[in-house]
Amino acid sequence: MNAPDPALIVGSMAFDDLELPTSTARDVVGGAATYAALSASLFTRPRVVAVVGHDFPREVLEDFERRGMDTSGIERADGQTFRWAGRYSEHLDSRVTLDTQLNVFADFRPRLPERYRQSRAVLLANIHPSLQLSVLDQLTVRPRLVVADTMDFWIERERATLERVLGRIDTLVINDEELRLLAGEHSIRKAARAVLRMGPSRLVCKRGEFGSLLFDEQGIFCAPPYPLEHAIDPTGAGDTFAGALVGYLCRADALDGATLRRALLVASAVASFTVEDVGTRRLAALDEPGMNARVAELESMVLYPATAVRSATP
Amino acid sequence: MNAPDPALIVGSMAFDDLELPTSTARDVVGGAATYAALSASLFTRPRVVAVVGHDFPREVLEDFERRGMDTSGIERADGQTFRWAGRYSEHLDSRVTLDTQLNVFADFRPRLPERYRQSRAVLLANIHPSLQLSVLDQLTVRPRLVVADTMDFWIERERATLERVLGRIDTLVINDEELRLLAGEHSIRKAARAVLRMGPSRLVCKRGEFGSLLFDEQGIFCAPPYPLEHAIDPTGAGDTFAGALVGYLCRADALDGATLRRALLVASAVASFTVEDVGTRRLAALDEPGMNARVAELESMVLYPATAVRSATP
Repeated sequence: MNAPDPALIVGSMAFDDLELPTSTARDVVGGAATYAALSASLFTRPRVVAVVGHDFPREVLEDFERRGMDTSGIERADGQTFRWAGRYSEHLDSRVTLDTQLNVFADFRPRLPERYRQSRAVLLANIHPSLQLSVLDQLTVRPRLVVADTMDFWIERERATLERVLGRIDTLVINDEELRLLAGEHSIRKAARAVLRMGPSRLVCKRGEFGSLLFDEQGIFCAPPYPLEHAIDPTGAGDTFAGALVGYLCRADALDGATLRRALLVASAVASFTVEDVGTRRLAALDEPGMNARVAELESMVLYPATAVRSATP
Repeated sequence: MNAPDPALIVGSMAFDDLELPTSTARDVVGGAATYAALSASLFTRPRVVAVVGHDFPREVLEDFERRGMDTSGIERADGQTFRWAGRYSEHLDSRVTLDTQLNVFADFRPRLPERYRQSRAVLLANIHPSLQLSVLDQLTVRPRLVVADTMDFWIERERATLERVLGRIDTLVINDEELRLLAGEHSIRKAARAVLRMGPSRLVCKRGEFGSLLFDEQGIFCAPPYPLEHAIDPTGAGDTFAGALVGYLCRADALDGATLRRALLVASAVASFTVEDVGTRRLAALDEPGMNARVAELESMVLYPATAVRSATP
């Protein structure tokens, strides 16, 4: 990947209605592509493919452009923007969907502008696996990094198509419960091994407030969570994580084991900001010094001075 | 601490009746002191203070002695050994107590043999806080390291006594739910800060399959869990962790930040063995090469080559 090579991000843009333990918020701009693109734009200039309705605020797209994103792949369709409504439990550890209105997202067919077809890093956020395949089909140059996310709905209902996606990506990013569902195996370690046999050479398991795990040919890496003082709204934290991962790797222009491991730690730090306020508010206000400070803090929570003695017994 | 200075471990010895997802086991030798002492004996020669009944197998104590433990503080009382019965959920993430028979443990009054009174590392496993205080009262030399564990029962019913314990120890080891209960605060980070104001200079929060966290004056350290392929029986894993922590620190003869951080990682590795079989079976079979191999593997899951660039943006 050449240094300025942008990442292509494909996913949903949405309005979210959120019932949080501390507040209720309506018409919050969200969606996987929104969080992932904002996050990736801390590192690179992402190209975004998504669809919004006539009701979607023009200012959001203008803000995207000020951040250096290419928004020409965001289609404005005739109709209303995708809307999701959910309610979180008291301590944010579970949520229920109250309503889903697909609206213009029902007919979303990702169309890549000509120059997008040569993106060398691609993030296929959680959308129908057949749409993920159609994005891959439109690429004219094989990307060096193809990351995909998915969800229980597709694992249960579109398994065959999802397996075709798994055969064409190199990195699957998925949460722990969905990993277990996909593999039919409770042990995360055994489940990861099973999924790696389905195609991807790397798997990143997101565990929310418990951090994330990378499984690759070098072994396992355990990225710590950033311990938050005030968790407000976890919506989009996983997408923020995936966006930072792809953005970081794009800018690092490398995919070796050490770079991947550091990318997980950085993604964990960036995702923690999303949880600190409603919607994208905190993430959108994040600057590079703020990010660097938190990454350094998180790194200090896992590193300790190397000692001469490496046996368990000191 | 001089290198051969033994750790004093005070706690319960018991029979456990276990209903596990994969099997049912009766009369399993357990108890916090059993797990902690076996674990600590990988590093040092622990002195054990506990009570057992006439029904407790002599061979277990003989085995303790072969491991170099001092068992002269284990009282054999007239009556039956403490018995706990519990049932675990399908994926071992929760358990219910089916029965508790205190038996000889009901009248347990820890009595330290004369030479135990100069132990410089002490582990007060989960027992009534007034008994924890009585152990501290019997010490004639102030220990360099005093670690205590506790549980929800004492937090809710013996809070004043427990607070006196907190004022006299330096390290509290506690699981996350009990930490929240003790602090009245859901955020682990805020809860830890609140508990550190109650007395101890360090707090270790155990999170089971999600690892552990150390809070001390240097900040926060996040110790990874060892990802298990086969989790069989988590009984005693937390006590194994605490025993390894104290044993490691005793043998390391140091309490600096780096040593403490490595101690957490080692304790996490040792505790993982306990979960791999019923009761103490796997832990009891563990030798130093086996432990060292797992510590090295766990360390490889958190460390990555230091890069010149320390900012988040590569």
